[in-house]
Amino acid sequence: MTDDKALTPRSEDFSAWYNEVVQRAELADHSPVRGSMVIRPWGYGIWENMQRALDDMFKETGHENAYFPLLIPMSFIEREKEHVEGFKPELAVVTHAGGKELDEPLVVRPTSETVIYAMYAKWVQSYRDLPILLNQWANVIRWELRTRLFLRTSEFLWQEGHTAHATDEEAQEETLRMLGVYRRFMEEWIAMPVVTGLKSDSEKFAGAVRTYTCEAMMQDLRALQAGTSHHLGQNFSRQFDLTFQTEHGEEEYAWNTSWGVSTRLVGAMVMTHGDDAGIVVPPKLAPVQVVIVPIYRKEDQRAAVVEKAEELKTRLGEQGMRVRVDDRDHLNPGAKFYEWERKGVPFRIEVGPRDLEKGQVVLVKRVTAEGEDRKEFLPEGQAVAELSARLDAFQKELLERARARRETHSHRGAGSIEEVGEILDSSGGFVYTGWSGDPSVEERIKAETKATLRCIPDPDFRSETPPERCVGGERATSEVLWARAY
Amino acid sequence: MTDDKALTPRSEDFSAWYNEVVQRAELADHSPVRGSMVIRPWGYGIWENMQRALDDMFKETGHENAYFPLLIPMSFIEREKEHVEGFKPELAVVTHAGGKELDEPLVVRPTSETVIYAMYAKWVQSYRDLPILLNQWANVIRWELRTRLFLRTSEFLWQEGHTAHATDEEAQEETLRMLGVYRRFMEEWIAMPVVTGLKSDSEKFAGAVRTYTCEAMMQDLRALQAGTSHHLGQNFSRQFDLTFQTEHGEEEYAWNTSWGVSTRLVGAMVMTHGDDAGIVVPPKLAPVQVVIVPIYRKEDQRAAVVEKAEELKTRLGEQGMRVRVDDRDHLNPGAKFYEWERKGVPFRIEVGPRDLEKGQVVLVKRVTAEGEDRKEFLPEGQAVAELSARLDAFQKELLERARARRETHSHRGAGSIEEVGEILDSSGGFVYTGWSGDPSVEERIKAETKATLRCIPDPDFRSETPPERCVGGERATSEVLWARAY
Repeated sequence: MTDDKALTPRSEDFSAWYNEVVQRAELADHSPVRGSMVIRPWGYGIWENMQRALDDMFKETGHENAYFPLLIPMSFIEREKEHVEGFKPELAVVTHAGGKELDEPLVVRPTSETVIYAMYAKWVQSYRDLPILLNQWANVIRWELRTRLFLRTSEFLWQEGHTAHATDEEAQEETLRMLGVYRRFMEEWIAMPVVTGLKSDSEKFAGAVRTYTCEAMMQDLRALQAGTSHHLGQNFSRQFDLTFQTEHGEEEYAWNTSWGVSTRLVGAMVMTHGDDAGIVVPPKLAPVQVVIVPIYRKEDQRAAVVEKAEELKTRLGEQGMRVRVDDRDHLNPGAKFYEWERKGVPFRIEVGPRDLEKGQVVLVKRVTAEGEDRKEFLPEGQAVAELSARLDAFQKELLERARARRETHSHRGAGSIEEVGEILDSSGGFVYTGWSGDPSVEERIKAETKATLRCIPDPDFRSETPPERCVGGERATSEVLWARAY
Repeated sequence: MTDDKALTPRSEDFSAWYNEVVQRAELADHSPVRGSMVIRPWGYGIWENMQRALDDMFKETGHENAYFPLLIPMSFIEREKEHVEGFKPELAVVTHAGGKELDEPLVVRPTSETVIYAMYAKWVQSYRDLPILLNQWANVIRWELRTRLFLRTSEFLWQEGHTAHATDEEAQEETLRMLGVYRRFMEEWIAMPVVTGLKSDSEKFAGAVRTYTCEAMMQDLRALQAGTSHHLGQNFSRQFDLTFQTEHGEEEYAWNTSWGVSTRLVGAMVMTHGDDAGIVVPPKLAPVQVVIVPIYRKEDQRAAVVEKAEELKTRLGEQGMRVRVDDRDHLNPGAKFYEWERKGVPFRIEVGPRDLEKGQVVLVKRVTAEGEDRKEFLPEGQAVAELSARLDAFQKELLERARARRETHSHRGAGSIEEVGEILDSSGGFVYTGWSGDPSVEERIKAETKATLRCIPDPDFRSETPPERCVGGERATSEVLWARAY
């Protein structure tokens, strides 16, 4: 199925562009089930590459994978007061099973703190059993009325890490370690720069003591929360009797952390790098990094160019690149070009009869900077020798481009709520100001500008001269980041 | 947590042994949710190795992964008549979500034919869009009253392949191709020989035209269905309007297949290879293939032996082996030996101060044949050089041992239902007989002997001289395999 109709340009309607590009790049499709999506092979291939990279990083930092039940008794969810308040409106509930009404309804997990810490309570006796450092790859359900593919769906795929520690300090270290893992992953793999920092009380996870977040800027200059890491303190261990005997023989509650990222990251990638021709997949995540399109008019030319394409594929594949030859006969080259551009493959190689004669290939880069050639004629040997380095360079360019955009659209110096509103109305983006810590300022900003407090940024992201006044007028106790968000 | 109490011997109570060994090897644990289990890191690590091997085999045979919704409208499940009859009693049903009663109840998927073929119908227009060759890794729920860890739980993890083809022949080829993949995986990775063959009508998948199965023999001589591959014909494509335009411009229904294996395979591995000391994990699946235990009495000996252990780990790791050094201080070596034996690690290396002096290590093999040394003193260099080959040999020995056991307990020549019963009562195992194709013979055998028709074996497994008479007395039209089964 090909579809050469142009996409709605981003500048015209970013939201329409997003919906179209996700479906026409065959990342995902709406399903007949309200609020749920189907992740198609191209989208799932990107997610698999994300999973593998994250999983390696989790294992390098000492974590193991496990699997906990999908269905959780309602009474478990209700045990932690803030937790149930946060999640109750979004729960999907199984009331009947095996042909009977259940004595106690079961909740399809919206997140797994409750059932996981109940199990840890069974496994932990002494400080020697700590820390427990587990992760699970799973599906979760949070009922949503207004859904968008990848960004907000009733069901999504994610990983949730859950750890238990003997001390508050260790749990805090773990919370920050995983925040750092997320930041590194988003920068190095998705080529998506993020601002890390602490959530305010009103934005933190239901049941957490502290929530840290990675905030990314999309091309429409809105913020997207891309991942969170929570210090849960002893909130859950108290409810689930997760105690341990210390070295000195005392009984204490363990300290927990949890942290997660989801298939939302695929949407974040789309909105960070995509253009009016389609999505752009960073080389490290691309299921196909190089597509080779053999060009021929007559049937007697076909064999030679397809053979050359296959040979190139082998030579590039031997260097570890993921390469596909598109030798479909019922599509003309132009249709193939459009399709692979829409799907965001980083490089395309074209080989035709004349290229064969000259020992050259045509190399086309998915995204070029001003003044850079999009299409190059390269001696075949040079193309084979350089392509791996060009993929690396492309990966870096995408990150730099996104970082430059974020810097261009980060505003510092607003001194009042009105100024915050003016900046957001006139140019959008990230607005850094002082804050007194007063939640009523958050409420006023939300009401007047539709922006939320995205985070209290980590030192890396703070202004050189910290603002002294809160936009609400009081003395500032911290610098914060405001933005309109997904 | 260690626990040195001996396991119930298999000969005394196989079922009790199984339950104990699964929990004490830390493969899985009962969860507070009825019928659901928690897969612990050791069990999940084995499942991850299974997944990776299968996933590679699926991709080599042209399949891609995708993801479809967990919740399926009840009306979808009801569309294929036999399908709903088969699954209705086991469904878990979401009736409420987002704080409201749903207009239409949603079923937690017991399998995904219905929603997947509904999507294929949307994606397929012409023969050019075929075949579709997708797989998904997912959790499913089939409500069970009597559950057993890994073997029968309300929730389990599995993969389900779903394909659509332009012709009946192609679908049949695919069905058999995937049966072959399963057989190869079970033999080469789980070291578990299987009999492949066709299910009788009474045992086939609800909605299939033909179901093929892999049947393995457990150590208690009962059969376990380890994986199935279904030719679905046009049963689902008719219900979900999955049509395509042929090369000649005609509209036709597509032909489907589906095939799956699950975490049940972890249970199959336990019951195939485990012994009274614990489980035995085939080297190719073992999260840890070699555990190194440093032995020391005094603190001043510790540094040198731990350093040697780490050095050995590095040298073995460089050859691609998965190695762990167990340098926990609060356990004595004996407790560590028991623990890793219980967890089924193929080889253990011990290094003590005297071994250091002599430049040797102690190598202990998890399972030995009669007359073979369990414990060997080997020059260090020899151990490092040979261990990889010894792991390969161990993998093969496990398969051969299981195959020999199956052959010993396979019985041919029974001519009547009474004889089948006598064989099963006196020795158990697999019984091959002739069959007329009459389902009433299956019913009588089930009533009188508790055995079921496991399959009509593929040529590889048939008797040299095919039986001429059915055990029911009529002329035999095929040879079949009977067994008491899980």
